[in-house]
Amino acid sequence: MISRAQVKEIRELASSKGREAAGLYLAEGDKIVREWLGSKTRIRYLAATEEWLQTNGVLAEQHPEATILPARPEDLERISTQKNPNGAVVIAEIPAPAAELPRNTWCLALDTIQDPGNLGTIIRNADWFGVQHIICSPGTADAWNPKVVAAAMGGHLRVQLHRSELPVFLRSCGTPVLAASLKGQDIREAISYTAATLIIGNESKGISPEVAACASVLVRIPGRGAAESLNAAVASGILLSMLVPG
Amino acid sequence: MISRAQVKEIRELASSKGREAAGLYLAEGDKIVREWLGSKTRIRYLAATEEWLQTNGVLAEQHPEATILPARPEDLERISTQKNPNGAVVIAEIPAPAAELPRNTWCLALDTIQDPGNLGTIIRNADWFGVQHIICSPGTADAWNPKVVAAAMGGHLRVQLHRSELPVFLRSCGTPVLAASLKGQDIREAISYTAATLIIGNESKGISPEVAACASVLVRIPGRGAAESLNAAVASGILLSMLVPG
Repeated sequence: MISRAQVKEIRELASSKGREAAGLYLAEGDKIVREWLGSKTRIRYLAATEEWLQTNGVLAEQHPEATILPARPEDLERISTQKNPNGAVVIAEIPAPAAELPRNTWCLALDTIQDPGNLGTIIRNADWFGVQHIICSPGTADAWNPKVVAAAMGGHLRVQLHRSELPVFLRSCGTPVLAASLKGQDIREAISYTAATLIIGNESKGISPEVAACASVLVRIPGRGAAESLNAAVASGILLSMLVPG
Repeated sequence: MISRAQVKEIRELASSKGREAAGLYLAEGDKIVREWLGSKTRIRYLAATEEWLQTNGVLAEQHPEATILPARPEDLERISTQKNPNGAVVIAEIPAPAAELPRNTWCLALDTIQDPGNLGTIIRNADWFGVQHIICSPGTADAWNPKVVAAAMGGHLRVQLHRSELPVFLRSCGTPVLAASLKGQDIREAISYTAATLIIGNESKGISPEVAACASVLVRIPGRGAAESLNAAVASGILLSMLVPG
């Protein structure tokens, strides 16, 4: 069974500070946990109800490094950040940062994306379109926040997440740097790029001037309606759908 | 000042039942409230701090039908569904349903969209691309939920929201009916439509068979990555960006 000390240890992962100190994060819910167990990511704990383990426990055989913690449903609720963790929660290791930032390949550069749901959905978009690198500015939400992990639907297992000041990265990424701008070219007439870096700006302030200054190509999503703007995750999806080769 | 009875009346609007009974909904936060006051929508109450009213109260002059309720910040927090309502909350009238469903015009048909954030973002997308009608299936989330209103960023003021069984609507809408399908045509090669109806399916189950049977054109968002699917609001944005004339 799960001990009090383990409950305390896991609950600390709900905060960014706790995750950073432990180097661990939560991935919650039946579907997500099965996906995590099917991957090669390093797992510290698998906490699950006896019932869940009876049906799915065999999946944990691929992860001899994981400690299995059979848990009562009420204990699972105590360690989970979700109201209903649906039988299982995994505590996995945050991958070590890559020694170098990516070069000459498709990347997303996120300039202070603050909403965890948006960040997770952007990771899911990258995963769909095969963009393997996301560079988060220091002001972007913590990518290992459980809400980000939930919204990304498995993207954390396939998309590499980096953290860097964006101007530093953008000057050395080796690709055209694209940004959305009302003054840009209609996205429907844009070409696709075998490698490029797309900047996505903050939900209310857009792209900051020092980051925007690094862009070499401006594109625009035409809208004939009256809305002031699109959601950042939706905008990133529309731009990727046109700019990444199919 | 705001009375206890008014606090109680407004708090009931947090639930779908309460909104239906009263025919009212909440629009919360400084930016949203200023947008609502700038519109012609009928407003029952404007609840705001004295400080907010001093700066913005003049906006309420366009709304002689509204009762102004000066509120202490703690009262505002009690009536708001947001942690920080940012000075002001509006209680507005839910528009009466249109006598007839739209015909021969651009529409979105939502087949059991369950997440309020997704629904709000889809309304925002429609607002951006100038799609003026959304038809919600009976199983779709309540469009007047405060989370939907927040995510739509003003879309409720411009996009007309209808409720209908979708097969009934789709058989009489008078336009081509489009749906996303893995077997469809690459969306990047699709034509744009002066009028069409686009079906958006449920977050996990997609489009139900009886609704899918009404589709006349299938389109596909190509992805070369490993993700299982895109978020429903992102997918709707990508499809609209290609299908609605700019």
